[in-house]
Amino acid sequence: MRIVVLAGGVGGARFTRGLREECIRRWPDGEGGTTAEIDVIVNTADDLWLAGLRLMPDFDSLLYALAGVNDEVRGWGRAGETERVSDELAAWGVGWPWFTLGDLDLGTHIARTSWLRDGRTPTQVAERLQQRWTLGARLHPVTDHEIDTQVLVDDPEAPTGSREMHFQEWWTRHRATMRARSFRQLDIEVSRPAPGVLDTLADADLIMLAPSNPVVSIGPILGVPGVRDAITAASAPVVGVSPIIAGSVVRGMADACLTAIGVATDAAAVARHYGASSHAGLLDAWLVDEADAASTSSLVSAGIRAAAVPLWMHDVDTSAAIAGHAIDIATG
Amino acid sequence: MRIVVLAGGVGGARFTRGLREECIRRWPDGEGGTTAEIDVIVNTADDLWLAGLRLMPDFDSLLYALAGVNDEVRGWGRAGETERVSDELAAWGVGWPWFTLGDLDLGTHIARTSWLRDGRTPTQVAERLQQRWTLGARLHPVTDHEIDTQVLVDDPEAPTGSREMHFQEWWTRHRATMRARSFRQLDIEVSRPAPGVLDTLADADLIMLAPSNPVVSIGPILGVPGVRDAITAASAPVVGVSPIIAGSVVRGMADACLTAIGVATDAAAVARHYGASSHAGLLDAWLVDEADAASTSSLVSAGIRAAAVPLWMHDVDTSAAIAGHAIDIATG
Repeated sequence: MRIVVLAGGVGGARFTRGLREECIRRWPDGEGGTTAEIDVIVNTADDLWLAGLRLMPDFDSLLYALAGVNDEVRGWGRAGETERVSDELAAWGVGWPWFTLGDLDLGTHIARTSWLRDGRTPTQVAERLQQRWTLGARLHPVTDHEIDTQVLVDDPEAPTGSREMHFQEWWTRHRATMRARSFRQLDIEVSRPAPGVLDTLADADLIMLAPSNPVVSIGPILGVPGVRDAITAASAPVVGVSPIIAGSVVRGMADACLTAIGVATDAAAVARHYGASSHAGLLDAWLVDEADAASTSSLVSAGIRAAAVPLWMHDVDTSAAIAGHAIDIATG
Repeated sequence: MRIVVLAGGVGGARFTRGLREECIRRWPDGEGGTTAEIDVIVNTADDLWLAGLRLMPDFDSLLYALAGVNDEVRGWGRAGETERVSDELAAWGVGWPWFTLGDLDLGTHIARTSWLRDGRTPTQVAERLQQRWTLGARLHPVTDHEIDTQVLVDDPEAPTGSREMHFQEWWTRHRATMRARSFRQLDIEVSRPAPGVLDTLADADLIMLAPSNPVVSIGPILGVPGVRDAITAASAPVVGVSPIIAGSVVRGMADACLTAIGVATDAAAVARHYGASSHAGLLDAWLVDEADAASTSSLVSAGIRAAAVPLWMHDVDTSAAIAGHAIDIATG
């Protein structure tokens, strides 16, 4: 069984951990692992240069979660983290005071930046980072090009009434409180999928959209030229998991992103945004939460198999159950 | 009173702290400081790129010591240092396992590298780093060019019987135990003094050679084209303090360096290596330790005013006393 997941950061990481657990249960290899192959195509559009270092937040969230070294309480970063270096950087006036760089996390950033400066590609760096732990999945940055997201936000004090800032400034510093007008991934139109991404999609038995932000996580993955076409051309069924439950985001501020692109913060609206594979869209199937059970019939009418199941990822068991439901509805 | 010091790392830092103290006593400004101006021309030949970061060990030693944040017990680095990030870098296989990067120190390296990557020169970066604390002295990297030292060492296993390595590898990893044949500062012949260095020397009332390594600390400073000429052309007297006491190095492994260039590990031999200003050399005066008092008459015969005083820098008072003796013999 070859499964490809399109994923953003924390939501994608929780989903993928659950998927790995579910695969171990369904397709055990007899040695505590699974015969299933899990490839994760990871969003890189919220990557950034900060303090001269290359940060890849979504990639690191997946890496740390699959390695079991993530901070479950905070929901991001490494467990047992400290901020000794970050305090120094603040004293030097380097970086963003509102963007914490943990000491353990900085080890990753320094290693990654060092390898990039040596001429390695993000994909090669990603492979090297994954060698440290047994992850039970392969992580692929969607592209080796830098497609860092800029956000055009309302700003009454700006001459034009709006200004552009890096996605992380809007998301982390302003907690998405300034109204976003649009999102722009720098140079995404001339980017190409990273080596392995298209082949992985072509060879997949199942393609899954994690419950990640449809606009700034899954959206940029689909926006890299060739990725969307590879998904629609693939023989594998495509199943998505709603990141919206009862009209609210599960985590993060996806509502502010959806509003900017004119999509309602609603489980069925997100499915229609992705579209039915039978109507030139992506989805064969879609999971909504039980709270949104009423919307499934309209999705079925639109050509998307839909089911309502519990979608809160409280722990690895509930995440695994969601992954199991997704596998069932896509392949059943 | 305008004093220029040529200095390497730890020895240079201790001497400069003492000099600052002596200046406060001799030329007080009534506010706890001094009306004397102290400019330090800092060796950059043991700088290095490591883990994608630019390290300037001698500059940082002076910076930390003058700021009072250095580790007095270890003799190098920041007080209260930890190694959280360094442990991570080792796990990633980045950097040199035998070269520790402290967390607080890494803040400096990251800030510096970030500014350098932004296009600032080492001199501009040095100015910015000095703004954090009141140092009572101005630090100037001798050049903005990278002149990292390579050492040619004996290696019976190498086809030619020798091989070249970065100075830090020889110094820190091998503790200078492999016999050094020669030292080479990369591209030093095409380097130029950093902005301000030549003017500072021309305007000086007194030029001092700190008790730093004559071969790999003071040597490269003098090797940057234009610096030696500026010193000999300057109207200021030049006084040096011996880094050798009773035939032994005060700290570090300067003996291994002196041997490589054919200079005896001896206070008077080092003075003759620098040479008398009256004979196209540098020195007007030279301080040796009381243990080397017997050598002063030969130096005086060679045209170098010499005196024997206690040269062990146990604390800031003993260092200040040495600086006072140096001022006296040079200007008296």
